[in-house]
Amino acid sequence: MPSTSAQDYSIVETIIPLLEAARTASVSVRNLSDQKRSEILLHLATLVESSVNEILAGNQPDLDAMPDEDPKKDRLLLTEARVIGLAQSLREVAKLPDPTGEILLKRELQDGLQLQNITTALGVVGVIYESRPNVTIDVAALCLRSGNACILRGGKEAIHSNTVLVKLIHQSLEAFGVPTAAVTLLPTDRKHVSELLTATRYVDIIIPRGSDGLIQFVRQNSLVPTIETGAGVCHTYVEQSADLTMAREIVVNAKVQRPSVCNALDTLVVDAAIAEKFLPQLKTELEAHQVEIFADETSYKIFEKAGYPMLQKATEEDFGREFLDFKCSVKVVAGVDEALNHIEKYSSRHSETIVTGDERIGELFLQNVDAAAVYVNASTRFTDGGQFGLGAEIGISTQKLHARGPFALEKLVTEKWIVRGKGHIRK
Amino acid sequence: MPSTSAQDYSIVETIIPLLEAARTASVSVRNLSDQKRSEILLHLATLVESSVNEILAGNQPDLDAMPDEDPKKDRLLLTEARVIGLAQSLREVAKLPDPTGEILLKRELQDGLQLQNITTALGVVGVIYESRPNVTIDVAALCLRSGNACILRGGKEAIHSNTVLVKLIHQSLEAFGVPTAAVTLLPTDRKHVSELLTATRYVDIIIPRGSDGLIQFVRQNSLVPTIETGAGVCHTYVEQSADLTMAREIVVNAKVQRPSVCNALDTLVVDAAIAEKFLPQLKTELEAHQVEIFADETSYKIFEKAGYPMLQKATEEDFGREFLDFKCSVKVVAGVDEALNHIEKYSSRHSETIVTGDERIGELFLQNVDAAAVYVNASTRFTDGGQFGLGAEIGISTQKLHARGPFALEKLVTEKWIVRGKGHIRK
Repeated sequence: MPSTSAQDYSIVETIIPLLEAARTASVSVRNLSDQKRSEILLHLATLVESSVNEILAGNQPDLDAMPDEDPKKDRLLLTEARVIGLAQSLREVAKLPDPTGEILLKRELQDGLQLQNITTALGVVGVIYESRPNVTIDVAALCLRSGNACILRGGKEAIHSNTVLVKLIHQSLEAFGVPTAAVTLLPTDRKHVSELLTATRYVDIIIPRGSDGLIQFVRQNSLVPTIETGAGVCHTYVEQSADLTMAREIVVNAKVQRPSVCNALDTLVVDAAIAEKFLPQLKTELEAHQVEIFADETSYKIFEKAGYPMLQKATEEDFGREFLDFKCSVKVVAGVDEALNHIEKYSSRHSETIVTGDERIGELFLQNVDAAAVYVNASTRFTDGGQFGLGAEIGISTQKLHARGPFALEKLVTEKWIVRGKGHIRK
Repeated sequence: MPSTSAQDYSIVETIIPLLEAARTASVSVRNLSDQKRSEILLHLATLVESSVNEILAGNQPDLDAMPDEDPKKDRLLLTEARVIGLAQSLREVAKLPDPTGEILLKRELQDGLQLQNITTALGVVGVIYESRPNVTIDVAALCLRSGNACILRGGKEAIHSNTVLVKLIHQSLEAFGVPTAAVTLLPTDRKHVSELLTATRYVDIIIPRGSDGLIQFVRQNSLVPTIETGAGVCHTYVEQSADLTMAREIVVNAKVQRPSVCNALDTLVVDAAIAEKFLPQLKTELEAHQVEIFADETSYKIFEKAGYPMLQKATEEDFGREFLDFKCSVKVVAGVDEALNHIEKYSSRHSETIVTGDERIGELFLQNVDAAAVYVNASTRFTDGGQFGLGAEIGISTQKLHARGPFALEKLVTEKWIVRGKGHIRK
């Protein structure tokens, strides 16, 4: 089998023939029945479970090549439990409803001309990602479930892990007579990324998953339409009428429950009227998690007086900054108008929340904050396809076209206008 | 009033302050009630009707500056009838249903956390177009109706016409207390196009309307997400079981009814089994319209034998070519498989049709052709927002994200996830 060795992924001149094969294979995937597509994923789940040793053996050379102190090492690591998790996630995607073939509109035009607008597979989905091998299985599962072929461009540091996983995916495809090019893993040479980003004839959509640098590179260089699963600069605004116990719980949860993710708190915005009372109440819990605070002038004095240890004066760069760590900035405002202006200026339009006891102000916030997910009296940590009941997601879109917020199975489709006539011509 | 002179549009250093003002104004437009937004358009319709002379006077210097032999002159021309048409189109858009505030999903998550997914205005819509001043009114109407601000970058050759039209739009906005920056006409200096295409902080979507060159430029240079309203390379495939009278009527309609538009026929694909019988039947009507035919080898012999006068041998470039004129290419195929392959290879994925007497083959075509609109036994000329019952359109999208096919009012929105809690935190 020529596609199973990691060596094969570094020696091609051009990936165009691979993209062409994926495009051809996409027709086979699109024409599979809903049931067949589910069965392939169930087959693969079983295969993954029975191949734990092989998968861990494939992961080993990648782990060996990465220094222990590299923070990406945990993302690269596969364990038996994580492999079993992959199989479970395959079974969950298999159970999700088919997003294709939905009739969005049905209308009779002049003289009985029949118009339908239906959902259909996108075709070929390209995903560019970094060191997490589980993305390989997640993306393949979502794409196959929705009748799409996919092009996977994983990071160089995970190539041996991805090679083993794609080999298993190919075995399941072959068992159902589907061309293996339906899930194509690209060689990791950087030059091929440019080829992928300009292959408008073969690739219908490109989704970058990973660092801000990767996303910016894709945005600047892609001719293929992209979905940006961008950074989350998330604010929690504690308005003066807030229940301060609720506010403390939400702030702490949004910051410390999992700070490395995009929906975690970056900036706490708080009304001046309650700042002196509220901010010291955060001390015990934030200190326990060693949260470093970048405070504006007013809040600096309050935290200093309260004896908060990990305190710095905020610079302009600390607002609009995604920390992804036990760090946050704090801004004191005069009231809701200044809070809305601050958020409009610095938000990355991902997830924003207000804690308030005033329903009218809560609704004003929901109406006026321009973000994918806007909350009242809840932690921003809920922005997630699974939490929202949409199943697995490819990422959180921070742009406004096609998909905003969790980019899940139901958005891996396009629409198609179908017109059935009996010789109709336009007059 | 500083915004009414055409001179003002050529002297600014940077358009960023204009884009910033449009972004601020977009909040006012979004917060207008459905009824207010309609009323503004009705007010503008009346104002346009009563300003016919002023509008025609504004059009005159643009007309004077364009040579009579320029094919764009008809597009630039405003007449009393065309101005009345603009007012009518404003009244039609006013009547269309509000696309914002629709609840797409409503769900209770854990412990009573309330989730909604609703449609909301995009924010700021940028449109880059060429010489047609009616686009100014159409885009402003669709954007205001859907709660969006818009940035209009019309062609230099229409700047005086556009200046007068935007002055009237501003009068209607002022009458309702809406900031005039909600409809912002940009100076025509080319350097500002690059500023617009990279202003991701202020502009949410850019739609290029016009030549393929413009669309390619936008695709290559825009960091703002775009909707491509691309070229239409449209095929009509006459399958061997077709009713040949019906086929002739559809082919002739698709080619000659209005050849300058994107949904007109470019390539006729015909089964070899019927080519000798069918192609000569087209002679009278195509000849009457002086249609120039670029024929492949087989069809060349048939047309030559039939004495077709405007006949040339097709080169490879004549397939996949958008003619926008009384010209078409002809390809003879062995059957449906070869026809599908030809269309897959050369289609611009706009509009494709099959004429067939075999329902099974018709459904195969609908299922397998990858295009925005796919037809059986009807002319491709129906691909149009108005024809599809969607009202006015900004263009026909040939890409797969967000909007495919007619890009009408209902797609000038994004979605927003609204979450209402009572102190919910993630465990």
